[in-house]
Amino acid sequence: MTPQADLLITGSHLLPGARQSELLEDHGIAVAGDTIIALGPTADLEKAHPRAQRLHTAHGLVMPGLINTHTHAAMSCFRGIADDLPLMTWLQEYIFPLEQRLTPEIVYHSTLLSLAEMIKSGTTSFCDMYLFAKDVARAAEQSGLRAWVGEVLFDFPSPSYGPVEAGFTYVEEMFCRYRQHPLVRVAVMPHSVYTCSPDLLRRLAEIARRENALLHIHLSENASEVATCRDRYGATPTRHLDRLGLLGDTTLAAHCVVLDEDDISLLAERKVKVSHCVESNLKLASGIAPVVRLLERGITVSLGTDGSASNNNIDMFGEMNCVAKVHKVDRMDPTAMNAETTLAAATLGGATALGVERRIGSLTVGRKADVIVIDLDQPHLIPLYNVPSHLVYAARGGDVVHSVINGRIVMRNRQLLTIDEHEVLAAMREIAAQFHPTPGRR
Amino acid sequence: MTPQADLLITGSHLLPGARQSELLEDHGIAVAGDTIIALGPTADLEKAHPRAQRLHTAHGLVMPGLINTHTHAAMSCFRGIADDLPLMTWLQEYIFPLEQRLTPEIVYHSTLLSLAEMIKSGTTSFCDMYLFAKDVARAAEQSGLRAWVGEVLFDFPSPSYGPVEAGFTYVEEMFCRYRQHPLVRVAVMPHSVYTCSPDLLRRLAEIARRENALLHIHLSENASEVATCRDRYGATPTRHLDRLGLLGDTTLAAHCVVLDEDDISLLAERKVKVSHCVESNLKLASGIAPVVRLLERGITVSLGTDGSASNNNIDMFGEMNCVAKVHKVDRMDPTAMNAETTLAAATLGGATALGVERRIGSLTVGRKADVIVIDLDQPHLIPLYNVPSHLVYAARGGDVVHSVINGRIVMRNRQLLTIDEHEVLAAMREIAAQFHPTPGRR
Repeated sequence: MTPQADLLITGSHLLPGARQSELLEDHGIAVAGDTIIALGPTADLEKAHPRAQRLHTAHGLVMPGLINTHTHAAMSCFRGIADDLPLMTWLQEYIFPLEQRLTPEIVYHSTLLSLAEMIKSGTTSFCDMYLFAKDVARAAEQSGLRAWVGEVLFDFPSPSYGPVEAGFTYVEEMFCRYRQHPLVRVAVMPHSVYTCSPDLLRRLAEIARRENALLHIHLSENASEVATCRDRYGATPTRHLDRLGLLGDTTLAAHCVVLDEDDISLLAERKVKVSHCVESNLKLASGIAPVVRLLERGITVSLGTDGSASNNNIDMFGEMNCVAKVHKVDRMDPTAMNAETTLAAATLGGATALGVERRIGSLTVGRKADVIVIDLDQPHLIPLYNVPSHLVYAARGGDVVHSVINGRIVMRNRQLLTIDEHEVLAAMREIAAQFHPTPGRR
Repeated sequence: MTPQADLLITGSHLLPGARQSELLEDHGIAVAGDTIIALGPTADLEKAHPRAQRLHTAHGLVMPGLINTHTHAAMSCFRGIADDLPLMTWLQEYIFPLEQRLTPEIVYHSTLLSLAEMIKSGTTSFCDMYLFAKDVARAAEQSGLRAWVGEVLFDFPSPSYGPVEAGFTYVEEMFCRYRQHPLVRVAVMPHSVYTCSPDLLRRLAEIARRENALLHIHLSENASEVATCRDRYGATPTRHLDRLGLLGDTTLAAHCVVLDEDDISLLAERKVKVSHCVESNLKLASGIAPVVRLLERGITVSLGTDGSASNNNIDMFGEMNCVAKVHKVDRMDPTAMNAETTLAAATLGGATALGVERRIGSLTVGRKADVIVIDLDQPHLIPLYNVPSHLVYAARGGDVVHSVINGRIVMRNRQLLTIDEHEVLAAMREIAAQFHPTPGRR
């Protein structure tokens, strides 16, 4: 006997993966519990599952949720507080001093704000590196998003856990707490080669191996990081990490902007995954990551927004748009990073980067139901000739009408069901007033 | 006696220009007829104008409408029909053959679709170059947008007017028809140096002078245009146009990607205005225009989206986001194209490019009331430290809730009042079916 679905998600179109050739009309998916149990024509699904709840959108595109593999969600509390500055001025005069004033409650509310933004712009999974990660995880649990969460570690005392040894305890406590959680996974997150000693990096790699956890780190973000690393260790950041045993198929490296051919070969050999954060790299004038080369070498490239202090939103549709365009001009080749390749990076690429390509990243029977629905009945999405093209070049986060994560509806008709949006906006207005006087003369 | 306002547009914040230092809290503007007659605190305006209609938004930012100085609005009917292709393949195998099948009705509906998109994403003025420009103007009249419209001319027969001599008649008729129109102005629009003979360019420049009209042309869009022009005329496109007498302070040049220092000096001396179309230039891999250099030389830079077949939306917020970021990495300088400079290019820069900087482009007493209101009560726009930063780096077209053009409300609470959105979407679905089979298997 066919199992009964709890939920049918249907629309005028279904795109199960990232290829236009997969597009189906008047199709949808059937979900039982957290899992996709069928794809089919809407009429057939309705007949086979008469008691299922229906989420139907007349001009709706049903597609996989987007996966954001590099965020600092709580940095939403610094959105727009300092822009258009050199990286070191921005970090040392603004961000680092402000971060000293963070508290668990500020991080919780600021993360929740970003998670509201994520859901409202089509993201269903994210990988977050920040301070007070227990409070990041607390917000993630509430939101219903699928999350990889890690406390960021470095050599100096942290505003979160204090001395570095306490950081190890903090990370261990997080692993204990979330080992069985269906949606929240703990990851090991050293900040970078320029803020972490070789010893710290080695110890963290050991924990990641023991816990079978993702290891996530900033890598080769700009020329100054590479120069510092060469000075200090006589190697590029990539080579340095490899010598310390940090490169492997469960390593997710964010940025990877400044790489030489040897670095790229190393990343390919070790099967390291990359989180490409194009908008942040442009805004901080870090450079343009050699993503086309990485893909040519068979390296998994996923997309990340970075924090909203250096973006300044975390809309993955905007990110896809920028990715597809910037690499064309960087290579002077309009065929580079076509719409399907870019959409794949934001979906299955993200799943592969996080090691869960058999669980999420496409709408396939047996995978978890992480699904969004796009409202196609809008001036900027008409006519409809090619769906990946629309998603990458024309759509925006605000076009997402429903979101389902792990079989649970977290947004319906743009109303959040897991987060009290009004409350989080009000809380953030109060928090912001602590950091900065209200702008504007009366 | 103070004149009575017909309309008060108020919100939590008012940004009359592009600078954060101009921001006012709990302020708004008073409009009489088509003109701004006062700026002031909401309470004072309400007291002084008790009978005025009120358009108040609790968490609303009142700001100048955006100005898009280079569009081919009717190309919305080709949105997504061909992407990720080399420029010549895209033009010769897709766009040119498709354009042979255009009719006045297709252009009218396709333009109306783009105008709906423009209003819904905060554009209040646009400058459009296309075929069947009478039908573009017809759509513009209906929409209530402020428009500069021109029939594109070139040496070969046009799908619109036929032989080139008929093109002159077509342009003359347009001037006759719109000479007194409050919102629609006719401009003279030769296509480019590679499609127009020197004789055609000279004759069109003469018409522009006689009519005191804007002259709008594609200029130095990519390296191949420059090479062709050098071969044919022994000069760069900019120098070639100057020799023919086409460069002056009422010339608006779109793209200007491939310029040498002599070209830039010529543009500066002749006071030519530039329409910078960054997303289209990236998508077609044309290159990155030297916008920072242009601004350093005192040249007016405005922003254009180009047509939605090479973008693929015409959201000026997305355009600003891309402009501010791309030039930072192009110059490897995170202070390049800061938020205020970018916002100015999309507002007063556009007005200056079109020769109407004393009429529109900022909210000032005596100027025409072209005003939009942004909904600030959303996760991606909280906290609010710096408004130009939000508009450039975080906001999206969908954040616009109301639009007023020339004192007339054209959108209220995202409902279009001058265009029947349902009707135009339905018409476009039918038109699209003529060009391309419906995607998706059943």
